[in-house]
Amino acid sequence: MNVVDTGARDQRSKRPTITDIARRAGVSKGTVSYALNDQPGVAAATRNRIREIALELGWQPNSAARALSGARAGVVGLVLARSADLLEVEPFFMSLISGFELRFGPREVSLLLQVIGEDPEQELAIYRRWAGQRKVDGVVLADLRTGDPRPALLSELGLPAVVLARHDELPGIASVWVDERVGMREAVEYLAALGHRSIARVTGIPDFVHTRARTDTFLTVAGELGMAARCVEADYTGAAGARATRRLLTAADRPSAIIYDNDVMAVAGLGVAQELGVRVPGDVSFVAWDDSPWCRLTYPTLSVVHHDVVAFGAAAAGALLRLIAGEEVPPQRFVTHLEPRASTARLGPPPS
Amino acid sequence: MNVVDTGARDQRSKRPTITDIARRAGVSKGTVSYALNDQPGVAAATRNRIREIALELGWQPNSAARALSGARAGVVGLVLARSADLLEVEPFFMSLISGFELRFGPREVSLLLQVIGEDPEQELAIYRRWAGQRKVDGVVLADLRTGDPRPALLSELGLPAVVLARHDELPGIASVWVDERVGMREAVEYLAALGHRSIARVTGIPDFVHTRARTDTFLTVAGELGMAARCVEADYTGAAGARATRRLLTAADRPSAIIYDNDVMAVAGLGVAQELGVRVPGDVSFVAWDDSPWCRLTYPTLSVVHHDVVAFGAAAAGALLRLIAGEEVPPQRFVTHLEPRASTARLGPPPS
Repeated sequence: MNVVDTGARDQRSKRPTITDIARRAGVSKGTVSYALNDQPGVAAATRNRIREIALELGWQPNSAARALSGARAGVVGLVLARSADLLEVEPFFMSLISGFELRFGPREVSLLLQVIGEDPEQELAIYRRWAGQRKVDGVVLADLRTGDPRPALLSELGLPAVVLARHDELPGIASVWVDERVGMREAVEYLAALGHRSIARVTGIPDFVHTRARTDTFLTVAGELGMAARCVEADYTGAAGARATRRLLTAADRPSAIIYDNDVMAVAGLGVAQELGVRVPGDVSFVAWDDSPWCRLTYPTLSVVHHDVVAFGAAAAGALLRLIAGEEVPPQRFVTHLEPRASTARLGPPPS
Repeated sequence: MNVVDTGARDQRSKRPTITDIARRAGVSKGTVSYALNDQPGVAAATRNRIREIALELGWQPNSAARALSGARAGVVGLVLARSADLLEVEPFFMSLISGFELRFGPREVSLLLQVIGEDPEQELAIYRRWAGQRKVDGVVLADLRTGDPRPALLSELGLPAVVLARHDELPGIASVWVDERVGMREAVEYLAALGHRSIARVTGIPDFVHTRARTDTFLTVAGELGMAARCVEADYTGAAGARATRRLLTAADRPSAIIYDNDVMAVAGLGVAQELGVRVPGDVSFVAWDDSPWCRLTYPTLSVVHHDVVAFGAAAAGALLRLIAGEEVPPQRFVTHLEPRASTARLGPPPS
């Protein structure tokens, strides 16, 4: 697909956007998007005027050109670089995919899913192949690591991508992210208010960007409040969560509260507490993360830092569809909040 | 793609298969498949001989023709017709997908996933679109219902499909299924041996073929053994599992054992038992189904009818790849087995 010559404009950094067309046509960006994508709901005269303006401005980025020519794949890609074991038990990705489908379903966009082990080279090769074969119109990037090469590659390949983490601006890349700091601060301050002075955190995979953000806030807020705080590294699996919990609950200086990085590890932790005769929340308070329905199926129900993963997935999918349609998509920030349930309690002498 | 004229042969019912070619060439079916699909590992002379025989026999079914012409999509489709709520918490599908990837990953086959609500018409429309646009090389069909129109449609469309249930023979359709009777019989006989005389079953969606098969066996075996047996219909969700459990545990004629149709409902049931002060397994024994890792994270750990869903997914994916390569794929039967853990016990007076 050739890019139409737009004269003096630099295609990469200053290409005309849907916003420019909307401004010139005096209509909303949505109307422009509908008109250029041949969606119903725009009067024929308006549609024609918008198309003329688009042509006049030289609005012809790669993906949009494909859209205009009808050559769009109607497919969006997601690579999951996690072990089968973990995917099986971790509700996060299925929730995320369910959220995607709230946006993709009505547009008849399908999701192309590739599950691989943790193999960064293979993942990059898949993106090159997908771009080369025009197999997908865009991708969603999960589990961003520090120094992750994927966003730059995708930008270079011209494959629109939504990164599920905070990320610097790159052409064709949008960022839909969770501000981990708010929920973590609320959780630590709540535990302090309940009288806890020694707390622990069982982490997910340490070099994920969001794991680091949570650890930083955990240590910072605990420090501000004069609490003893320690982290045990784990990897989201039940086995690792159980191991970390056993280590913490059998330590001489046992913490009185534990914050887990997902729900699987927290549920595994509950099992270990019961096995050791440690009462939750009588002896130790537990806080889980993400809040899949599993957290409300346990006894006691789990206090959580709640993350509406389905809504987050829907927002990411919506952002990707707008990117693919050639719109500019500003970063979108989600906030998590503490939702106390039955697994946290005031620290005090056990009831006699 | 036109079908090559094969003279007297009836394309539909008597087309030549890879088995015919293998027999004629004096090599294994695997070698034929590799040769026709341009995979490495076959000597050039053998490859050429196999191709000549294939041409001579008029081996040219639709999918194989695509494979020969290199026009294969390298994509396999899966429609999930379940609510987002349920997908989020039900580990079955993610396990199944992980199993698929054990076979698809090494072949660089991607999975095209479409999550829709329970809308049979929409699902049929998706298959028509996928077939028309040659978007996928084949599909996997889950959750077969009685009188399900999907297998016949796919056969008619010439889209190879693996049905995850027992199904009559249809051209281009293979059946990879779980024999529910074995595991259910083992579970009911085990409960009888432990002294239980009144048992209950909390079902999944009643008109799925596998739900009916389990219910039939449950009632038959209980009848043979002279046990009182009842079913409460549910839908795999935690909420429905909790409701059904509450109803059973508060009934005047409370059963002393409950068999659940998945793990989500069993975990929800454990929560209800704790809420009501009913001891598991002291007062009531619980048996779950499928055996995702969640069943080993609870306290007590859940006795289950174990189904290796990852292996089942891998087998289904393997069968589909062979179907797509033009091979004949006989039905493949999986058997589930009881795996007792800590949630089942001999019925007797509570320890004093």
